[in-house]
Amino acid sequence: MAAPTGTFPLLLQWRGCILSRLVMAKRRVGAIRFSSAEAAAVSLGEPQAPGGMAPTKDSENDSRKKTFSEILAEREVQAQRTVLINCPPNFNAKSFLKYLSQHGNIKNHFFYKSKAMYAVIEFSEKESITSLQDVITIPEFKDEHPIPFKSRILTLMLKKQPDPVSEQTPIVCHRQTSIPVEMLVKKLCDAESVSEQLYLLTNECQLTEENTKLRFLACSLIQDIASAYFSDCVVKPFGSSVNTFGKLGCDLDMFLELNKVGKNSVKRKTSPFNIIYQMKKAPSERIAAQRILNVLGEFLDNFGPGCEGVQKILNARCPLVRFSHQPSGLQCDLTVNNRIALKSSELLYVYGSLDPRVRTLAFSIRYWAWNHGLTSSIPGAWITNFSLTMMVLFFLQRRQPPIVPTLDQLKKLADAEDKEVIEGFDCTFVSNLNKITPTSNTETLDVLLGDFFEFYGNFAFNKNSLNIRKGKEQNKPEACALHIQNPFEENLNISKNVNAAQLQRFVSLARDSAWILQQVEKRPSDNSKPWGLAALLQASEPGRVSKGFKRLNVLNSDRVKDLLNSLKM
Amino acid sequence: MAAPTGTFPLLLQWRGCILSRLVMAKRRVGAIRFSSAEAAAVSLGEPQAPGGMAPTKDSENDSRKKTFSEILAEREVQAQRTVLINCPPNFNAKSFLKYLSQHGNIKNHFFYKSKAMYAVIEFSEKESITSLQDVITIPEFKDEHPIPFKSRILTLMLKKQPDPVSEQTPIVCHRQTSIPVEMLVKKLCDAESVSEQLYLLTNECQLTEENTKLRFLACSLIQDIASAYFSDCVVKPFGSSVNTFGKLGCDLDMFLELNKVGKNSVKRKTSPFNIIYQMKKAPSERIAAQRILNVLGEFLDNFGPGCEGVQKILNARCPLVRFSHQPSGLQCDLTVNNRIALKSSELLYVYGSLDPRVRTLAFSIRYWAWNHGLTSSIPGAWITNFSLTMMVLFFLQRRQPPIVPTLDQLKKLADAEDKEVIEGFDCTFVSNLNKITPTSNTETLDVLLGDFFEFYGNFAFNKNSLNIRKGKEQNKPEACALHIQNPFEENLNISKNVNAAQLQRFVSLARDSAWILQQVEKRPSDNSKPWGLAALLQASEPGRVSKGFKRLNVLNSDRVKDLLNSLKM
Repeated sequence: MAAPTGTFPLLLQWRGCILSRLVMAKRRVGAIRFSSAEAAAVSLGEPQAPGGMAPTKDSENDSRKKTFSEILAEREVQAQRTVLINCPPNFNAKSFLKYLSQHGNIKNHFFYKSKAMYAVIEFSEKESITSLQDVITIPEFKDEHPIPFKSRILTLMLKKQPDPVSEQTPIVCHRQTSIPVEMLVKKLCDAESVSEQLYLLTNECQLTEENTKLRFLACSLIQDIASAYFSDCVVKPFGSSVNTFGKLGCDLDMFLELNKVGKNSVKRKTSPFNIIYQMKKAPSERIAAQRILNVLGEFLDNFGPGCEGVQKILNARCPLVRFSHQPSGLQCDLTVNNRIALKSSELLYVYGSLDPRVRTLAFSIRYWAWNHGLTSSIPGAWITNFSLTMMVLFFLQRRQPPIVPTLDQLKKLADAEDKEVIEGFDCTFVSNLNKITPTSNTETLDVLLGDFFEFYGNFAFNKNSLNIRKGKEQNKPEACALHIQNPFEENLNISKNVNAAQLQRFVSLARDSAWILQQVEKRPSDNSKPWGLAALLQASEPGRVSKGFKRLNVLNSDRVKDLLNSLKM
Repeated sequence: MAAPTGTFPLLLQWRGCILSRLVMAKRRVGAIRFSSAEAAAVSLGEPQAPGGMAPTKDSENDSRKKTFSEILAEREVQAQRTVLINCPPNFNAKSFLKYLSQHGNIKNHFFYKSKAMYAVIEFSEKESITSLQDVITIPEFKDEHPIPFKSRILTLMLKKQPDPVSEQTPIVCHRQTSIPVEMLVKKLCDAESVSEQLYLLTNECQLTEENTKLRFLACSLIQDIASAYFSDCVVKPFGSSVNTFGKLGCDLDMFLELNKVGKNSVKRKTSPFNIIYQMKKAPSERIAAQRILNVLGEFLDNFGPGCEGVQKILNARCPLVRFSHQPSGLQCDLTVNNRIALKSSELLYVYGSLDPRVRTLAFSIRYWAWNHGLTSSIPGAWITNFSLTMMVLFFLQRRQPPIVPTLDQLKKLADAEDKEVIEGFDCTFVSNLNKITPTSNTETLDVLLGDFFEFYGNFAFNKNSLNIRKGKEQNKPEACALHIQNPFEENLNISKNVNAAQLQRFVSLARDSAWILQQVEKRPSDNSKPWGLAALLQASEPGRVSKGFKRLNVLNSDRVKDLLNSLKM
């Protein structure tokens, strides 16, 4: 049996949340099920554990939630045992999997479609890949010349005509992108409450187990390239792919970690000699990063299988290489030694895992902002998803009683192993989720969503800064439209890029949304028009403007202007 | 004991030549010895076998000379077991070698100076390098940031003050460059005959065992870089470094062989599937080569330890990356899949190994041409060393009886294993040197040198082409100054680049040299002035022009003009 993706009650259970608070939600969404076709899949492997980056539990001790580092490490090892195979149309999946099993037990597998159909095959042992590679050949083309870089992205070829379609087991393809907004709006209208709508939205649009695997696999494939030169380096995903707030189809941020390379612990103190590697030097870490990314970018562009549209953005504050990884269908940003960013991802992961309302509210706000064009993957004056999530966390810290602790409180819970200073900044906070006491606040998401819009619709952005370390607003230390203190690099403002116009759009949209929500808080008995969250999302769609939603669309045209200006720059 | 480099009679023996013909030469040069200091060396390793690329003999069967491929394969394996270590001044070599021996037996080692002092350490087992790498660290600098690429180029650091110089065993450094012409001229004047002068020149200026090792090591280091991506690829030296005609300090031509990559022989015919690697494609082999060299060039430039002045010359007929490999002091040209060039090197190797006169005459003519600026490492209208060597071989084929066989004769001797067709061209010739019957011609080099100059001083270059495949001149198939048929790609002219002015310079210099040689054929009893070969080399030195040599210098100024024109282009 393949993964029972999409069954909502199970998802909640997997999240390791406090069950008592969810009894109602579970009862309500029991009716929402996906077609049985989606749940069935050809499988010779073992059942897959669903839940993306959710804190899975230890089998030995069911109450222990795994730490972020433990989950990352497990995922990395999984990815290293995995190959990606481009499959032809009308192939027999059962005999294909049997054929692959010659090289070792297949622990896990799934199929998906990007530009073509792909199979993700996870073996139980890494050695199976070596065995498989012994029979893989380099393609020969008539008029083209392959560049013989051997990766774990393979292509399956049929030696004879495929079996008639009728004789084949149907192949279930796991969806790797969000459902269209219209379809989502329809689904949301069938929910019973705003709270249920938020859970449904999250469940529909969050990263799936399969998509998470694919993201780690993509990093592992890039790591193969980088580690050819920088042995022992690691390519790690960060940001939305791992912080539990990522939406299906979001960009894959990854960074190359070189710091651990060559730190030999073996020292022979008795000898009169030291031997060191002769290495080229760069005048700064930034220039070293630029040079490394420049060469890796060239490699990806020229030889990296499936890496297309490679752009080297080396003069950015954080130099990066952007490319499209066609087989996985992911848009990737590769940086170097970006450990603070990973620490920020862990912080969001910790917050997101504390209480199901945190992740659901933040996910919904991010979706709402994206839906209204408040966020963008193009750099510019837009609010980032990270800033939005900080705003949600700050809002939840301000509830009475608070739903999430302050960063200072999380730091107090840290033990010796959690101590971490990166580039001079103290990034220490507790990694063990079990040490954090659950909140006694029982407010519903219906209340929280409306209050969030009201809170920021009335927030004194002109004079106050948000500080999640203290859980308090503070006087703005410098002139800027929006000030949210960087949780680790405390002298920095994470939303320095946001200009007054963008902040104004956010505030206006928040006010409008609060107003709309009050008008259509309940499901109309006749299902005559979108209500609750559906109404908020519906509002941004052109051609469907009802009277009350006019302003949202005026603002959207402002956004188009900004976008054009940004592109011109 | 270290290598007894420089003892001439031994060299001849190593060359596996026919001893009877050399009795006279050996007797004559018995007097020429190098300083004992040069022969002594600190050594914990085994004695080194001298002779560069000369055909070494099998210990089992003393009469069997090794083939070119066998020697290349041995050298490659040697190089892979070798590390290059930058040594500080005033270190204790004996305790350094003892320290390294912790990681395994040192089979061979030597020291040399390029920009700094280096030790070449060849372990008996490749695993010793892995063991050594466990204790090597990445350097830490105050204001600089190392790019952590780990190669086999290392730096030795002393933990404490070095021992006083007086207590140290002196370190012998092996010379890696030719001696200056003035010094050579002086040495030549002490010889007994022109023939002896030619042997002396060859012995003084040819590649040494150590320099040959260094060249294979440099290729092996570049292979480490390339094979990181193109697993199973090989970087092979070709041209002067391996054809036995190379002079100390000549450029190192190397090529990346990708063709064997991924040619899996294991086929499972019973399965209905084939799996192939997904790879980027280039529209032609040339474009693939350009892309590969472009990325490797970027890598060498940014990360390659000791690789400086990297130039990508990708639009050349044969795209290449040129760089200076500082630790070895070698100027390198890296190309891709240049197998015909390697075959040409093997052909010269076979010819050079047949009879000591072949290599000695060709080496001397190449030196003479270089000394007069007839050849250059800058591309242009100059005659190449390959063309010059072909001219010598052709001349030797035309003697009565011939001193070397024609290429067609070498092809007839080939067995099934020698059959080789590269890019559609038949490159088959015998690889087993023992199958070639020695010549019965006993002419001395005194005669051959003079006759060579006369032969080409009077050759009808205007209508005839040189064809070493047939050993005959033929009508020129196309208009060009100099026509020498490519031995394998028979429709090509290897000296197409040579213009009329350069050919005229060669002819005039040949005539002048023939004339000078007749005037000063014998050593003057009073050692009053340079004679024989020394007079020919002396003639090109400015400020020392005697009456008879005037024209040579006039021509030299022509060469300067050509050089300037070439640089302008």
